[in-house]
Amino acid sequence: MAIVMDAEALNTFMREVFQQVADDFEVDHVAENEITMRLLTGHRHLRPGGTVSGPSMFALADVAAYLVTLAMIGPKALAVTTNCSIDFMRKPVSGVNLIAQARLLKLGKQLSVTDVMIYSEGSDKPVARASLTYAIPPAKVA
Amino acid sequence: MAIVMDAEALNTFMREVFQQVADDFEVDHVAENEITMRLLTGHRHLRPGGTVSGPSMFALADVAAYLVTLAMIGPKALAVTTNCSIDFMRKPVSGVNLIAQARLLKLGKQLSVTDVMIYSEGSDKPVARASLTYAIPPAKVA
Amino acid sequence: MAIVMDAEALNTFMREVFQQVADDFEVDHVAENEITMRLLTGHRHLRPGGTVSGPSMFALADVAAYLVTLAMIGPKALAVTTNCSIDFMRKPVSGVNLIAQARLLKLGKQLSVTDVMIYSEGSDKPVARASLTYAIPPAKVA
Amino acid sequence: MAIVMDAEALNTFMREVFQQVADDFEVDHVAENEITMRLLTGHRHLRPGGTVSGPSMFALADVAAYLVTLAMIGPKALAVTTNCSIDFMRKPVSGVNLIAQARLLKLGKQLSVTDVMIYSEGSDKPVARASLTYAIPPAKVA
Repeated sequence: MAIVMDAEALNTFMREVFQQVADDFEVDHVAENEITMRLLTGHRHLRPGGTVSGPSMFALADVAAYLVTLAMIGPKALAVTTNCSIDFMRKPVSGVNLIAQARLLKLGKQLSVTDVMIYSEGSDKPVARASLTYAIPPAKVA
Repeated sequence: MAIVMDAEALNTFMREVFQQVADDFEVDHVAENEITMRLLTGHRHLRPGGTVSGPSMFALADVAAYLVTLAMIGPKALAVTTNCSIDFMRKPVSGVNLIAQARLLKLGKQLSVTDVMIYSEGSDKPVARASLTYAIPPAKVA
Repeated sequence: MAIVMDAEALNTFMREVFQQVADDFEVDHVAENEITMRLLTGHRHLRPGGTVSGPSMFALADVAAYLVTLAMIGPKALAVTTNCSIDFMRKPVSGVNLIAQARLLKLGKQLSVTDVMIYSEGSDKPVARASLTYAIPPAKVA
Repeated sequence: MAIVMDAEALNTFMREVFQQVADDFEVDHVAENEITMRLLTGHRHLRPGGTVSGPSMFALADVAAYLVTLAMIGPKALAVTTNCSIDFMRKPVSGVNLIAQARLLKLGKQLSVTDVMIYSEGSDKPVARASLTYAIPPAKVA
């Protein structure tokens, strides 16, 4: 299946449509059904002790699942998350970005399902794992 | 089982330990194994179109599960979320606060399990439902 | 919203369409967006030690979510589970049936979301909690 | 980390401790933090239409998460599932076994977290994906 939006197209889309959070995230790499992106960790993402907060990791998983879907179907601002299950497994390393590797496991007409692994940059032990379902609006809405 | 921290104690604890987000949340009411709290919806919680973002709803569910646990066991800053499953079911009403009703379903020595329903204030149709597991640190750490 | 199938209609439907498991389950009561049903616990549902197995509890949650959806939309054998999150919280009491209380939280055109609490008959402490999403086939398929 | 139980040891353990389901499952292969195993699909696992039922897929994910944990820590019959989130993505191919690939993402003192992908034998498109948390009993219980 052909990639419809590459890393540059996804980053541009994020800045246009989600100005409020576009500074937090950056897409590194897009492959078929896969993207790698990062949370540019800043003070607002931290909990006492200097580790990235749960909601910031959720936000990273959520945007990664959204963008890997768009990478394959093109810009549909109206796709919405319907479900997320997330496991927090290790404390993130403080002072580094978080890296998300998202894999599209299913791309149906109405639903996509994505698996996301989150790592502290430079570590190979996952800090979190999430799976997300997105509802894709009918084609005419796109 | 006796309530160990009431709404005032939980609000004070939030302001002391989580200054970065304490202005976002307020506990309304505490009962045995239950709390009602709110997200004081502001511009930073919104998505294009004016509805509250998924990560903001996750953050509300997460803090509600944490605080209903502390209401029954007292202040343990080190309890951590290990798992969350969340369903997003309806678009929140724009321009109003979100209300979370959290119920502690299990309070074990090592884990608590909480169910959270989220509503737009003034509506009885849930916008989201979440269940969360917290790992409770051994007593000496408290 | 009117109830389309009552307890008797759901039990009859189960026996016709799911002969293989119909002897395991029985619907007790149907109300608007809610059903109460039971697992008729038998030897085949047990784990060593005499408690009901996880897969048997999953099966109960799954059928309860399915039947509460059908109670409101009528018999659609093709509805399929797309997601389930389940928390196992306590060991079931041995030698008694399990009771599931299912509540339909959302009934959309394409998806339903149901919350299920499972109890050992005669106890008010939940042994498990589940949330399930069902994909509802387009009307013509019904 | 060394493998403590290989495929043969796990299969023997299953037959001794879980006689009721041991005929349903078989471990194919064990590697560090990973196992591959199968559901030996029989009539009792099927739904109308001939595809494997949701509860049978849940059972496969559950036993795979359990056995990959035991592969690394040794036989502890008392480990219990505390949470499972499962996405059903495609109809299984009828008439073939289901293959589960389980990866241990975290092995802590109290909890293990496992990711499981389920395929119809001979296909590379996942029919289901699950993540499971197991509570590990304290060492003296082993």
